[in-house]
Amino acid sequence: MADINTIAQQFVDFYYQTFAGTRSQLKGLYRDHSMLTFEGNAIQGAAAIAEKLEGLPFTQVKHKVTTLDAQPSSPAVASLLVSVTGLLIVDDSENPLQFSQVFQLIPEGGSYYVFNDIFRLNYG
Amino acid sequence: MADINTIAQQFVDFYYQTFAGTRSQLKGLYRDHSMLTFEGNAIQGAAAIAEKLEGLPFTQVKHKVTTLDAQPSSPAVASLLVSVTGLLIVDDSENPLQFSQVFQLIPEGGSYYVFNDIFRLNYG
Repeated sequence: MADINTIAQQFVDFYYQTFAGTRSQLKGLYRDHSMLTFEGNAIQGAAAIAEKLEGLPFTQVKHKVTTLDAQPSSPAVASLLVSVTGLLIVDDSENPLQFSQVFQLIPEGGSYYVFNDIFRLNYG
Repeated sequence: MADINTIAQQFVDFYYQTFAGTRSQLKGLYRDHSMLTFEGNAIQGAAAIAEKLEGLPFTQVKHKVTTLDAQPSSPAVASLLVSVTGLLIVDDSENPLQFSQVFQLIPEGGSYYVFNDIFRLNYG
């Protein structure tokens, strides 16, 4: 099995590239029992989560990852916890926003899906 | 069972009060398979984690919580994921530091212990 830091890095690269590119494809990373808490709003299920993410009011967005940490999230299953901090650059804004995001990834058929997703902007 | 947001709030209040007070008592919240990643340094086990936390080079510290989010972290067990962002006020510094911290809490005998703990300072 690949090292969890490598898995976390590959996941995060893929996630934010997809977010910046074809955001609708993020839906495939979630399942019906997946949860997203976005700026305090709790949303459940791949369809509702995809609707939320696709509906965010910006057209261009880039997540610049500053720190990435991963840990196994279960003694039993090869699931992992991924914590990201970084900068969110929206549209043509000159002021990047600091963000924190946490994912729990669950193995499924040789890949992973997102069970938990918590996103927050950090206002200084 | 209490609502998970209430559990998360109670845990976080207790954790940061203990951190500010008798930091050595944090050891009781971790187990031998618990993990802490502190500013990128991975540490395992209650004893090593307590040693790390007690050895941090400041005498007075206050965590001021800005945001707190919680989600169930397993479909099977009543474990929970807690994500915190806030300000760290160290000694008599006039410049609070932004931080992000993630915990996974596992139920045990009517209470919870910390299985995962990831802490990062966010430099703007």
